[in-house]
Amino acid sequence: MDALNYTMLCDFYELTMGNGYFKNGMHNRICYFDVFFRKVPDGGGFAIAAGLDQIIDYIQNLRFDKRDIEYLRSKGCFDEQFLRWLKYFRFSGDIWAVPEGTPVFPGEPVITVRAPAVEAQLVETYLLLQFNHQSLIATKASRVVRAAQGRPVLEFGSRRAQGGDAAILGARAAFIGGCAGTACTVTDQIYGVPAGGTMAHSWVQMFDTEYEAFKTYCEIYPNNATLLVDTYNTLKSGVPNAIRCFKEILVPKGISNFAIRLDSGDISYLSKQARKMLDEAGLQCCKITASNALDEELIQDLLAQGACVDTFGVGERLITARSEPVFGAVYKLAAVENADGVILPKIKISENTAKITTPHFKKVYRLYDRETGKALADQICVWDEEIDDAAPLTIFDQDAVWKTKKLENYRAKELLVPIFQGGKLVYKRPGLKEIQAYCREQVDLLWDEVKRFHNPHTYYVDLSEKLWLVKRELLRMTTEG
Amino acid sequence: MDALNYTMLCDFYELTMGNGYFKNGMHNRICYFDVFFRKVPDGGGFAIAAGLDQIIDYIQNLRFDKRDIEYLRSKGCFDEQFLRWLKYFRFSGDIWAVPEGTPVFPGEPVITVRAPAVEAQLVETYLLLQFNHQSLIATKASRVVRAAQGRPVLEFGSRRAQGGDAAILGARAAFIGGCAGTACTVTDQIYGVPAGGTMAHSWVQMFDTEYEAFKTYCEIYPNNATLLVDTYNTLKSGVPNAIRCFKEILVPKGISNFAIRLDSGDISYLSKQARKMLDEAGLQCCKITASNALDEELIQDLLAQGACVDTFGVGERLITARSEPVFGAVYKLAAVENADGVILPKIKISENTAKITTPHFKKVYRLYDRETGKALADQICVWDEEIDDAAPLTIFDQDAVWKTKKLENYRAKELLVPIFQGGKLVYKRPGLKEIQAYCREQVDLLWDEVKRFHNPHTYYVDLSEKLWLVKRELLRMTTEG
Repeated sequence: MDALNYTMLCDFYELTMGNGYFKNGMHNRICYFDVFFRKVPDGGGFAIAAGLDQIIDYIQNLRFDKRDIEYLRSKGCFDEQFLRWLKYFRFSGDIWAVPEGTPVFPGEPVITVRAPAVEAQLVETYLLLQFNHQSLIATKASRVVRAAQGRPVLEFGSRRAQGGDAAILGARAAFIGGCAGTACTVTDQIYGVPAGGTMAHSWVQMFDTEYEAFKTYCEIYPNNATLLVDTYNTLKSGVPNAIRCFKEILVPKGISNFAIRLDSGDISYLSKQARKMLDEAGLQCCKITASNALDEELIQDLLAQGACVDTFGVGERLITARSEPVFGAVYKLAAVENADGVILPKIKISENTAKITTPHFKKVYRLYDRETGKALADQICVWDEEIDDAAPLTIFDQDAVWKTKKLENYRAKELLVPIFQGGKLVYKRPGLKEIQAYCREQVDLLWDEVKRFHNPHTYYVDLSEKLWLVKRELLRMTTEG
Repeated sequence: MDALNYTMLCDFYELTMGNGYFKNGMHNRICYFDVFFRKVPDGGGFAIAAGLDQIIDYIQNLRFDKRDIEYLRSKGCFDEQFLRWLKYFRFSGDIWAVPEGTPVFPGEPVITVRAPAVEAQLVETYLLLQFNHQSLIATKASRVVRAAQGRPVLEFGSRRAQGGDAAILGARAAFIGGCAGTACTVTDQIYGVPAGGTMAHSWVQMFDTEYEAFKTYCEIYPNNATLLVDTYNTLKSGVPNAIRCFKEILVPKGISNFAIRLDSGDISYLSKQARKMLDEAGLQCCKITASNALDEELIQDLLAQGACVDTFGVGERLITARSEPVFGAVYKLAAVENADGVILPKIKISENTAKITTPHFKKVYRLYDRETGKALADQICVWDEEIDDAAPLTIFDQDAVWKTKKLENYRAKELLVPIFQGGKLVYKRPGLKEIQAYCREQVDLLWDEVKRFHNPHTYYVDLSEKLWLVKRELLRMTTEG
């Protein structure tokens, strides 16, 4: 599977606007666009950023080939000059982004693009699509994995994914969020996410008896036998046949690394009964895997009821983020540069105040308590501000400015790092295991109150005073104008 | 964008089972697998089948290349003989499927695969993934389009799609379900789904005033100006500025093909107010497009309230099928052939009776009333049965056999058509516009009662008596055994 050129995966209006900027002599005007989101899916307290690696591939492969130009010409609405320009088009701008695996919060920029108008406009769809999809799945995976309380969670959902990329990159994102592995072979091949899996019901059906099917499997895969016990009757047939095969074939060889899988019925009841039967047969070593329409809510419930499950296989509800399948990051103009390179902040008003954008070219600091190490708040600043964490800092709520908090003994870390500068990649791309480890470490630095599944504490994301004043002034000018 | 080889997009267990069949000498055993689903998303009365064209590409491209084999070898669980066999592997089996755009119902086979065990097992994930994804979106699109009562619906969701394929093929599937066009450029380029779109808020923000932004746009695109009127204030600024530009620039040129787009606020209220303002300005010709978190429910409500909307742009709730983002088709073994070519039906039992499979190699007839033309019922038969529609037919409910219905003056049509025979494509692939027209025509042949959004009438999908007897006998044997 080779990397595709996704240049033409853009909304048509990005091209009509580009042509418009071009005809109007505005195409080289430097713009700043922010990617940010307004709401964490499932009412969660934070999201996990993901998708940057594919965005980097996309930016590096950006180019219109002959067929693309011909297709655009056939639409009859683009200038020849613009089409000629597209032919030599490469991305020449700057991109900053939060590293994959970072916990992120509503309202803060997670990607910032600084580029000539046409270029900045053109990358809108793909940047959003990739960030939205992978962050959606990484965020969901993080919830599911936390619900499993240390038990491995395997991603099993390819067949229900919304297309090939959703299966392949969904499994990648699930790994970032904490999954231990996947059933998706190609995600292992490309990204090194450990792929595993043993048998479907069809394997059992292909043999004359369930016993024969299990026996054959144990003989072929003595070191990795997970027997699916629910083809006929879990407790009357599946578990007894599995026990018989383990004892006849694997135990005599000194093997203890085997398991059964429950894929239907009441997992709580069946797992407890199966555990009892296995233990009574002296097979305390046998693990139990469960996989049937699971998600974080059901896993939490099952464990609260004492279900005897060692590994969870999670399918459609993870790979589609079924409970809330949309991650709503948007791409909004934050500033433009005038001919002298002066940055002019821009705002988008909305009757819904929550939809008013935060203007200007910005940076984001995460502030950690030096004593506990925990993340305290994020502070969005104007690009030229520096937080000196040797000095105390007073943060305030932008919607209720009398709510202030004075920070001392804190550490400030910039969240957005340079990815492209002048069209050149300047970011050292971490490996996927590194990203997963970074994610776990950063999630650990959040307070439990922020990590609660329901009604979590709202983490503070504040504006610096300077930025707040810029926003207030622009709001005043725009609404009076 | 070239067609990818998706051979490795399979669940790992398909390969471990394949290796197992191989080692056990069962890999050439002919198997029959059915793709079917149990439930229509959103409680709807029918689904729209889609995805076959991509499945055909997949089957034709199926092959393991050197890198694939090397990767598999590195996993340490596959036999060298099996890996050698994979090297020369091509799909050699038969596939039957319902054409794209066909309304389909729970419990009936929509794809049947007859192939040697390893081949049949290997294609499971991709067939399901592709059928599930595109049928999900085509089914959702059909609902949205029917809610719009003849007004064009445009697919706008790429940026919220679950990955690149979800955007590209989702727009394709939405077109099958009845959408008039898409914002996704590459879906136009590859599949000919008309792409359109005009401006984002950023276009308006790039100019000093909204008036100037609109004016410039009308000058550049006089024949296709849809002005986005909600960047600052829809009724106080956006609509008046749009009216001014239309009258100054387009009306004097005799152009009447222009529109405004509402993208926030209360669409019902704003559209009525905007309509009034446009009409009072003599711009009865100006169309109104609306696009803000729309789906079939909201569109139905808006139209019931008399909203003045001519075109709907539908984004995230269509491209992710947000209200129910999973289409749950499964892939189940239905029969195997013994050494003499005799077909032995297979069944999968479940404690949940609705999950018990219908065994055997089957065909499906759709029965239409010759008088009204409407579809009356589907009848699932054993492969060697023929329905002679010159004779009366009594159908019965498999779960309540005393419920019978005698059909006379009906027409019987086979639903599944041959796609591959002996690995060779034997199907003439229709164009996408043809598929869309076929879908519309077939949906028109369903009774309104089946098309209701909530609590629709359950369309009859019955078994022939012969098939019912096979199923009953297998159930008896399996549960007694």
